[in-house]
Order: sequence, then structure tokens, then C-alpha cells
Amino acid sequence: MSERLVVIGGDAGGMAAATQARRLRPDLEIVALEKGRWTSYSACGIPYVVGGVIDDLDDLVVRTPAEFAANYAIDARVGHEVTAIDVDRRELEVRDTEVGATYRLGFDVLHIGTGAVPIRPPLPGIDGGDIHGVQTLEDAAHLLDHARDAASVKRVVVVGAGYIGLEMAEAFVMRGCDVTVVEGGPQVMPTLDADMAVLVTSALRDKGVVVELERRVIGFERGTVDTDGGPLPADLVVLGIGVAPNTALAAGAGIDVGVRGAIKVDRRQRTSADGVWAAGDCCESFHLVADRPVHIALGTVANKQSRVAGINIGGGYATFPGVVGTAATKICETEIARTGLTEREAASYGFLAVAATIESSIRAGYFPDAGWIKVKLVAEQRSGRILGGQIVGLAGAAKRIDVVATAVTAQMTVEQVTALDLAYAPPFGPVWDPVLVAARKVAQALT
Amino acid sequence: MSERLVVIGGDAGGMAAATQARRLRPDLEIVALEKGRWTSYSACGIPYVVGGVIDDLDDLVVRTPAEFAANYAIDARVGHEVTAIDVDRRELEVRDTEVGATYRLGFDVLHIGTGAVPIRPPLPGIDGGDIHGVQTLEDAAHLLDHARDAASVKRVVVVGAGYIGLEMAEAFVMRGCDVTVVEGGPQVMPTLDADMAVLVTSALRDKGVVVELERRVIGFERGTVDTDGGPLPADLVVLGIGVAPNTALAAGAGIDVGVRGAIKVDRRQRTSADGVWAAGDCCESFHLVADRPVHIALGTVANKQSRVAGINIGGGYATFPGVVGTAATKICETEIARTGLTEREAASYGFLAVAATIESSIRAGYFPDAGWIKVKLVAEQRSGRILGGQIVGLAGAAKRIDVVATAVTAQMTVEQVTALDLAYAPPFGPVWDPVLVAARKVAQALT
Repeated sequence: MSERLVVIGGDAGGMAAATQARRLRPDLEIVALEKGRWTSYSACGIPYVVGGVIDDLDDLVVRTPAEFAANYAIDARVGHEVTAIDVDRRELEVRDTEVGATYRLGFDVLHIGTGAVPIRPPLPGIDGGDIHGVQTLEDAAHLLDHARDAASVKRVVVVGAGYIGLEMAEAFVMRGCDVTVVEGGPQVMPTLDADMAVLVTSALRDKGVVVELERRVIGFERGTVDTDGGPLPADLVVLGIGVAPNTALAAGAGIDVGVRGAIKVDRRQRTSADGVWAAGDCCESFHLVADRPVHIALGTVANKQSRVAGINIGGGYATFPGVVGTAATKICETEIARTGLTEREAASYGFLAVAATIESSIRAGYFPDAGWIKVKLVAEQRSGRILGGQIVGLAGAAKRIDVVATAVTAQMTVEQVTALDLAYAPPFGPVWDPVLVAARKVAQALT
Repeated sequence: MSERLVVIGGDAGGMAAATQARRLRPDLEIVALEKGRWTSYSACGIPYVVGGVIDDLDDLVVRTPAEFAANYAIDARVGHEVTAIDVDRRELEVRDTEVGATYRLGFDVLHIGTGAVPIRPPLPGIDGGDIHGVQTLEDAAHLLDHARDAASVKRVVVVGAGYIGLEMAEAFVMRGCDVTVVEGGPQVMPTLDADMAVLVTSALRDKGVVVELERRVIGFERGTVDTDGGPLPADLVVLGIGVAPNTALAAGAGIDVGVRGAIKVDRRQRTSADGVWAAGDCCESFHLVADRPVHIALGTVANKQSRVAGINIGGGYATFPGVVGTAATKICETEIARTGLTEREAASYGFLAVAATIESSIRAGYFPDAGWIKVKLVAEQRSGRILGGQIVGLAGAAKRIDVVATAVTAQMTVEQVTALDLAYAPPFGPVWDPVLVAARKVAQALT
């Protein structure tokens, strides 16, 4: 009898591993269990469906269960929720939510890709009315219904000003709603330094979004979000205060968890339990600059980890060295990106750091629609090592962070970055690329 | 009496050094001699003025002589051509072309930034009629007159299919001319591998440019370019067959020259003559992958070298470690970029190399106008070291080469590139960045 791999979770964290394992092990029996209705979809695309940029939720689905069956001989079961893992007996308890029955399923190898769930703060009224997280296509379907219901959804309150919160704010602005973002902290985008975050706040306000900072939500009532600064009327509430790794199942099975409850994995994505692997938003990853495990729930990381797990499950050898915390988004025409450590994070990790910020243009200055870009770079004193960067600007700004991410990964100094031979032609930038100008300025500040 | 720095050449190679030296040495007397009428301009912008994207040649000028005088106390003399350098006597012979007089000018420190000149092949008829190189604003002014003269300039023949040739082809297409590109070699863009170059040929042909490959120009007559495949009618001929370092002056003074006659310099931009520096298109630079001196005439390199020279002239310390051969351009909506070594170059330098090419999209596949992108990466067998990359695609494609350029500079392996934490959001790319997909494919080909 062939070995059976069971994968828990039908999105990137699970299915990339399943398909990789299949490529290397044609003999393996592979069963994938997904509690929701969809497999293998781009959760990052949800705001763009809600906003109307993309027509249909189905556009976000990369592969359906039928495609997994036909192309990969993977038995992907949707509506099947794993309710318990018994590592010693190599067995799962599974509930088929469609028929309401529970069954047991044995495994030889187990891969966990259970993802993350939106944080729902334990506030009065949180479970009543239209208060939505943004993570699964089920969430998306609910939000899309509201977005299309212009008659009854006029006022949207977004709680939290991180990536998802702001992308959802953009989406509902595009639907013509009045949008208020409520953030308990002193700035939007806590993953940026305050001086860069203000550019994002301006971009939001320019689009008509009301941004309420240092205002704490204390509860919810029908049609109202209560805050410490008074009530805010709301036909719909979107939660954008982050996600938590979905690891109750793994922890319940005695598998080691670490930062924020995320599953601990080694470089090959092995968990503490023999023959049990994990990848994606339910896992830790290693931060190459902070030099410690972190929990970063991003599709890029999930896909890479999951691929690595699948290669190893399939008998190959692959490692996931870690992350540098790169992320990007846009608010209408304003693009935002970051990588490595912010100035504040660098200080908190004990680095003696210097930072410099420059403003430049995305094309040569004399080009039509040259577009502004601000670049902030952070470097370590003495060593000159580049620790991180942040970029805010118009079209073409965000992906320039990739050079910084690469330089951070390679542990380059800002002197070395200054000398980088980056591409230039007037339609693509000034002769001194904005990243290089920023590196030059940091290098000067170091000496 | 203060020391005198004389700079030969009023563009990037010269003037960036002059301004850097000024910052560090307020006491220095600085004289800059430029034989043309303009200082400090973006030659790379010329095709966009000729094509009508940018209104006026003056838009390309970064700093005028008056601005150098007012802001940097630099005596920048236009129309002053240096005709001889006497290194031992620390003296120049200068011709004031305006008044027709010659004078001698002493120097303590000399900096040479004489740039490059378009190659004019010694063919019959080359010196008669409208046969233009593209390098200085003088060239640009002539070409602009023709471009605006739609009545008499209908048929334009571009000789040579390198960057400048193709950019000029685009410019005249935008002016409504019939454009033919004649190239003696078997492909356009000899700095790309043939399989990537064909994408550029297609882009040109889609825009109505006639591309004649393996067709050699044998002479010029009034209204005609003679080729080994018959005559081509031409109201205007543009030469795009490359540039040569403008170093007769330096060589005549006994300063060492190397590759293609370019001035030899060390890491600080010192020439072989004591107290004589050089930077820009007239100089060699060191190729970090080919591991040897090369001549690459590009504004980015010129600016960086010139800044380094200026810091050293000013008593500071800076080095220019070298180049990886990054370059980019666009033909209407098709963007083209390359860095490091092509597959062909890698083989010619003795690398045992493998390459892989992938096609992907510039945004998430489900996004409107996702845009195609092709990425080719080249890596060394055994070591897995990334040696170079080439990208062709729609808007947003070209600058992605910068990640490759950075990885090549950092001597990363393709495995390391595969794991890079690059920015992702659906408007900016697929969850697996095209560069990473290409790296993954090369890594597979290596094993």
C-alpha cells in the first residue's frame, strides 16, 4: 500500500506543498482537507474584488478541487474540517460539514497549512451585526455582497490601519462609500516609521477617507462603532487589526508553537513532531535581520515555505532561509513598500542605527509625469550594513523596495548599495536611482 | 595662491567631479572647459526630445554655466576646446572657439571627462549629407530640426540596432516617419541573447519599423543608404553603431589607455599620470562578473565614477568598485533590460553556464492589464552563482532587472535568489515574482 500524505488547509500553505510532493512522489496518496468552500486562492486579491477592480471572486481561485484531482491526482476535499490530530496514532478526526458526519483519517506524513484568522478583539457587541474580518473567500463573499449593496451600505468603518485595513478602505472608497479608519495607535501602517506613515495618511485623506488616530474602539452596537472619542455611525464594520496563526489544532496535538502561537519549524519546515510538516501563515519564519523567529502572514512567504515543505516531503532537499519583512501595498495611486527593519524596530532590536530620507522622481525629472518617490533607508553605525528601507510614492515606487530587500539579504553596506549598477533610462528613473541617492545620504550620515 | 583644478568636459564625467571637489575644498580654484555649447545635460534624454515626448532640449540641461558659477564658484567655459595636455608642465592648450583664439591654462590637478563620440564608419559618402550621430546636444539640435520638418523628412534610416539606434527609431516613428533599421549582425540589441532579442524585433515591427538584419551598409549617397542588399531611400540617416571613448587628447599626453582606447583608471579614478583623474565615457570600468576592464558608456557609470573622482580630488576617499553591465531602454510600450552576462557572453568568458527563460505577468494574473514579462537568467554550473539576466516585457518590466543586478553584484546563487523576500501585492506582481520563478527554473536546471 502506498504512503498517505494528508494536508490540512487548501490554500497556499497547504497546496503548494501538496503539488511539490506530487511532482517528486508519483506513488504518494495525497488527501487535502479544507474546511471552507474554496482551494488555492489569492486572499491578497480580496480587496480588489470588493473594490470592483476584479470582477469576480472566482478570478482569485488558482486551482479548484477538480483541477487538483485531474492534474495532480490530489484528493482535495472542501467542507472537510479537521477537528483533532493524533500524532502518535497517525490519525485525524475530520468533520464533513456538508453532510454533518465525522470520520477518522490515517496519515503517514502530515502537512499543516491552516493559515491565520483575523483577530476579533473581545469587545462588547463584536459577535453581533455586520463585523467582518478579511481572510477567506467566505469573508470576501460577505463583503462583496455589502459592497454591491450601495443602497444600504453607505458608511463603512474600518478598524485598524494596517495593510488589510487600508486596502479595504480603498475598496469601499472605490464603491462610493464614506469610509472612516479608526486606529488606536498614533499612526497608520505600524510597519512603517511615523515620518513615512504620514504620507500614507495624507494619501488616504486626499481620497476622502476619514482617518481617526489614537482613537480606541470600545464596543459595537447596531449601526454604531463605539470609540473612546464617541460613537461612529457604521452600516458595515471591517476588521483590519491583523491576523493570528490558526494553530489551536496543532498546539492541541502537542506540536511546539512559538512566537504569537505560530508553529515552530526548522529550515526544512519540519515541526517538532516526527513526520509532521507545516508552512504558511500558521508558521513562524526566521527574520534574517532581527535574527529571531517572527510571525509574518504573507502569501509570498506561505508559497515559498510550502514549496520547500513539499520538496522535502517528496524526498528532496530544500530550505527556507527566512524573511526580511518585505511588504507592499497601494492606496489608490499611492504605493507603499517596506523591507528589513524600520528605524524604530532597529533601535528596539539593539542596533545603533542611522537613517536618511530623500525625495526624488520615478522617471527622469524632465519626463512628463515624473512622479514623486520618497525613500528612507536605515543602516547600522560602524558596520554600515543596510538594515531596511521604506518607500512611498506614485506608480512605479513600490517595487523599487526589491533592490533594498536584496541588499538587506546580502548584508550589503550602504557604500556598496551606492555603487550598485541599477538600470537607467529616462522613462525609468533619474540617472541616480532614488534608492542610490538614499544610500548615499545614509553613507554620509555614517561618517 | 590657491590650487587650480581644471576639468575637461562639461557633462557628467567632468562636472560631477567638479561639484564634489568643490564641496570638500572651498579653497580650490575650479575651471571647467567644454568645447560644446552646453554643460551638464542628459544625453540619454535626446531621443525623447526628438520624439516629442519632451518639449525642449533645454529641459535636458541640469546646470548651466551661470548656475555652476553662482552655486559652486566653478568657472565653466563653454566653447572652449582643449587641444593639448602637457602633463609635465601642468598646462593645457585651449582654443576659445567663439573668438578663435588659443590660450594656455595651467593646472595643479587635472580631471578628464571628455566622454565618447559616435562611431562613424569610414564608408564612402559618410561625410556628406544628413548623417547624424547621437551624443551631444549639438547632435540633438540637428536631429530635432529634422524631426520637426515633417515635409522634407519622411524616410529615416537608422544604422545599427543597439540602444541608441532603437531609441531613435522609436523617436522618428513617433514623429510619423517611415523608419528602417539596418543592422549588419543577425539580431537587434547585441547586448541581449538572440532568443530575447527577437522579442524586441517583434516590438519594432509591430510599430511599423522595418528591421533589416544581416544587411551591411556599404556607403551613402544623397537620399540613399547603399547596402549589400541594395539601396535604401533615406531623407535622414541616424548612426547608432555605438560610441568610442574620446581619448585622443589623453593618449597624446602619454596617459595610459586600455580597452578600446579608454583611459585606464584605478578604483579611485586615478589615471597613470600623477595628479590626473578621469571619469565617465572616456574611461574604462571594471566588470565585476567578467572580471576584467570594459568600456561601457552610460550616464549612470559616468555619474558614479565622476562623483568618486571628485571626492578623491577633494581629499576624501571613495572608490568605484565596478559595473555589472546593467542597461535598460524601451521601444514604445516594450521595455528591455539586461545585467551581468548573457548566455553567449558567459560562454565566451569561459563560464560553464546554464540559462532558463520564463514568461509571467507584471501584475497578478487576474488583475486587469496584467502585462507580459519574459525573464531569462544565467547561472554558473556547480557554484550556482547568478551571472546575469535579461528582461523584456510591458510597462513595469525593465526595472525588475535591478534585483538581478543586485544579486549578481552580491554573487548570490540562484537558490538564494529563489528565496528572496521580494515585495508582493496583486497590483505589483504575481505572488511568485517573475525573477524568482526564473531563478527557480535555473536552479532546477542546475541539479
